[in-house]
Amino acid sequence: MDIKSIIVKKRSRDVLNDDEIKYFVSKMTKGEITEAQIGALLSYIYTTGLTEQELVCLAQAMANSGDKIDLSDVADNIVDKHSTGGVGDKVTLILIPVIAALGIPVGKISSRGYGITGGTLDKLESIPGFNVNISIEDFKKQVKEVGASIIGQKLNLAPAETIMYKIRNQVACQDSLPIIAASLMSLKLATGANKIVFDITCGKGTYVKNLEEARRLGKLLIRLGKNLKKDVACIITDMDEPLGYSVGHNLEIEETINALNGKMPEDLGNVVVTLGTVILNLVNGKKNDEEHKEAIKEVLRNGAAYEKFKEIVKAQSGDLSYVENVDKFEKAKYIVPVYAEKDGTIESVDADIVGSIAIYIGAGRTKENNEVNHRSGITILKKKGDPVSTGETLAYIHSDDESKIKGATENLRDAFKITNKKVQFKSNILDILY
Amino acid sequence: MDIKSIIVKKRSRDVLNDDEIKYFVSKMTKGEITEAQIGALLSYIYTTGLTEQELVCLAQAMANSGDKIDLSDVADNIVDKHSTGGVGDKVTLILIPVIAALGIPVGKISSRGYGITGGTLDKLESIPGFNVNISIEDFKKQVKEVGASIIGQKLNLAPAETIMYKIRNQVACQDSLPIIAASLMSLKLATGANKIVFDITCGKGTYVKNLEEARRLGKLLIRLGKNLKKDVACIITDMDEPLGYSVGHNLEIEETINALNGKMPEDLGNVVVTLGTVILNLVNGKKNDEEHKEAIKEVLRNGAAYEKFKEIVKAQSGDLSYVENVDKFEKAKYIVPVYAEKDGTIESVDADIVGSIAIYIGAGRTKENNEVNHRSGITILKKKGDPVSTGETLAYIHSDDESKIKGATENLRDAFKITNKKVQFKSNILDILY
Repeated sequence: MDIKSIIVKKRSRDVLNDDEIKYFVSKMTKGEITEAQIGALLSYIYTTGLTEQELVCLAQAMANSGDKIDLSDVADNIVDKHSTGGVGDKVTLILIPVIAALGIPVGKISSRGYGITGGTLDKLESIPGFNVNISIEDFKKQVKEVGASIIGQKLNLAPAETIMYKIRNQVACQDSLPIIAASLMSLKLATGANKIVFDITCGKGTYVKNLEEARRLGKLLIRLGKNLKKDVACIITDMDEPLGYSVGHNLEIEETINALNGKMPEDLGNVVVTLGTVILNLVNGKKNDEEHKEAIKEVLRNGAAYEKFKEIVKAQSGDLSYVENVDKFEKAKYIVPVYAEKDGTIESVDADIVGSIAIYIGAGRTKENNEVNHRSGITILKKKGDPVSTGETLAYIHSDDESKIKGATENLRDAFKITNKKVQFKSNILDILY
Repeated sequence: MDIKSIIVKKRSRDVLNDDEIKYFVSKMTKGEITEAQIGALLSYIYTTGLTEQELVCLAQAMANSGDKIDLSDVADNIVDKHSTGGVGDKVTLILIPVIAALGIPVGKISSRGYGITGGTLDKLESIPGFNVNISIEDFKKQVKEVGASIIGQKLNLAPAETIMYKIRNQVACQDSLPIIAASLMSLKLATGANKIVFDITCGKGTYVKNLEEARRLGKLLIRLGKNLKKDVACIITDMDEPLGYSVGHNLEIEETINALNGKMPEDLGNVVVTLGTVILNLVNGKKNDEEHKEAIKEVLRNGAAYEKFKEIVKAQSGDLSYVENVDKFEKAKYIVPVYAEKDGTIESVDADIVGSIAIYIGAGRTKENNEVNHRSGITILKKKGDPVSTGETLAYIHSDDESKIKGATENLRDAFKITNKKVQFKSNILDILY
């Protein structure tokens, strides 16, 4: 077996057998095939697709390419939630304590931010002392005792996925559904999850640009899950505008804490409640949307989720005084308003532009080892459907770097489209798939 | 413009415009796109092909990617000859003095050997003192005064071709006709040639495996030449078995010198005379096969070509005493016969196997910086159509490395297919295309 004949086989629209797929993943992981060869094979997968069996085998081989976690001694159901990325997405930070407050133990392996998509770990580190690098033993112990833990990938989880992710972006295969599905599922398989909900974000601020495409990805993930004997569901959410009102690390943690204290932005609450409901449906093995929705709203209302969040922060050495008083979070040196230049109604706030500005002012990474500035970010005051008058504040830029303020504010103004027509309000939950 | 949108365009079977092709070649040459991106674009070119305009632009952009040579002050017609590679191919070494002896000045830029294909430069260096690294000024002076010179690529000729050649082999695009055609023509354009003959070798010992494919490549090169306003012709020659009776550096130079002295193997002579005839037809602007054939045979018969060879060797500091007495060439430490194991007629001598053994015993390169052993090689005594009896010598292995003799002789025996059926004799000149 050699990689060139595998490339030729896929080029000829033939089906690869399990051994060939395992060979490809193994050689890719060991660096024994070239990046050109990976690029070529991904290109032919893009144009010819993968059969169900090929996809199952690819996801498994990628999951098996590195370390795996076994949480079966911690809980019967290993719940996991995965978002395909977006701007201002702090859902995990709220959802995990909600789920744990409902008595379902949940151990979450999260990642760092990259590009316009922020990272849960970076956001948690806004809380002084918060340790995302605890050992697997301590992680398991915390899931048992506290009911929840959120940690980083200290382990070498699905290294084949990391390589493939890099190359797929280089060769314009970032929108290949089978490649995306194999990647997403391999990460979940490596964490041993059996009840998995994907939040497929859809719109300007993410790589799935329209609902039809998102539905196809969702169906593919559910079918793949069935073939792998995992319970998978997907919700599709609008990511044309940022989620919530804050983008940036300290700002998003503040918004998270406020949300857990009853000040939940509507779009963010929709995602949290919908995802939570779907998770409860999967865990209980039967659909009971209304009851689960109520239970989730109740732990948000009565402070149980907030208390669980504090327990997690405490268990992972975070400074609780910041959670109890969000005014303690450091502010950026410059906080500069962006004003509306005409009257009307907000038609859209472009998540891609907002995310790119966040990177520009230091609140995001473009390279893996970039540091992020926790103080910088963007506060949005007006979102889709809100009326505005000339001179009214649309948003604030938070930055330590004076030289970047002018460019950032001008660009941020362009993210806001103001119209004189009536703007239709639509829920940001576009679909739910089981 | 960016490389990902160019990849997407080709994937969508769109035609790339000149600017996009130039951008790709320029970024590839500067190392500003990744090898994965080159591999992906070549893959889509493989499956979708190139239009004539794309091909013209690609060949020109690659030719313009590095240094170019201008020989227009040396001769009116810049003649060039290019073989797509083979085993035992010493045609250039004989053809150049033949052409020069006929009064047509010819400056030849040759290359080193790689894989099973030997290199003219390496073979010339078998003659002690022979200098292939003379300056372009001395090269031009020699072409004017002696009528011929053969040198190496000290210049940075078509560096984009070098990169594309490497990647095309990695991603199994080595048999893509438009990619091959662009590569071959870019090298010729960089040397400023306007009368170009390609020897498209076809069979086991080269990358074009059948006649139909060779004809398609030939027609493509001729059409590309027309579009570039160059006179191009192609001959297609059989490379199922090695050319001549010797493979290896000293051995091939000995065979070359003997051929120039009247002891010309038939298949080698066919290629030399046919290529020479086609070149004369191109230079004179009209076909006159019989007259040109006769003229070529005459300079081979009367020693004029041999004298020209000696003039070239002398001008480039080679030791003439070796040319005058081929027994002076160093011999390998071990010269071991390979015997026939049955009676019959030789049906074939597999050029690929012979070439691979040559590499194994040190007479070829698998990496760019490998040294070659000039003494080692293979002498073939029996070729297609020759009768053999059990125990008769089929070939000799020449090697300095005792440990490799056993493996080499056993493998070499497998290169010879002996049959009891009648073997049809066919000329090794399979076609000539203008």
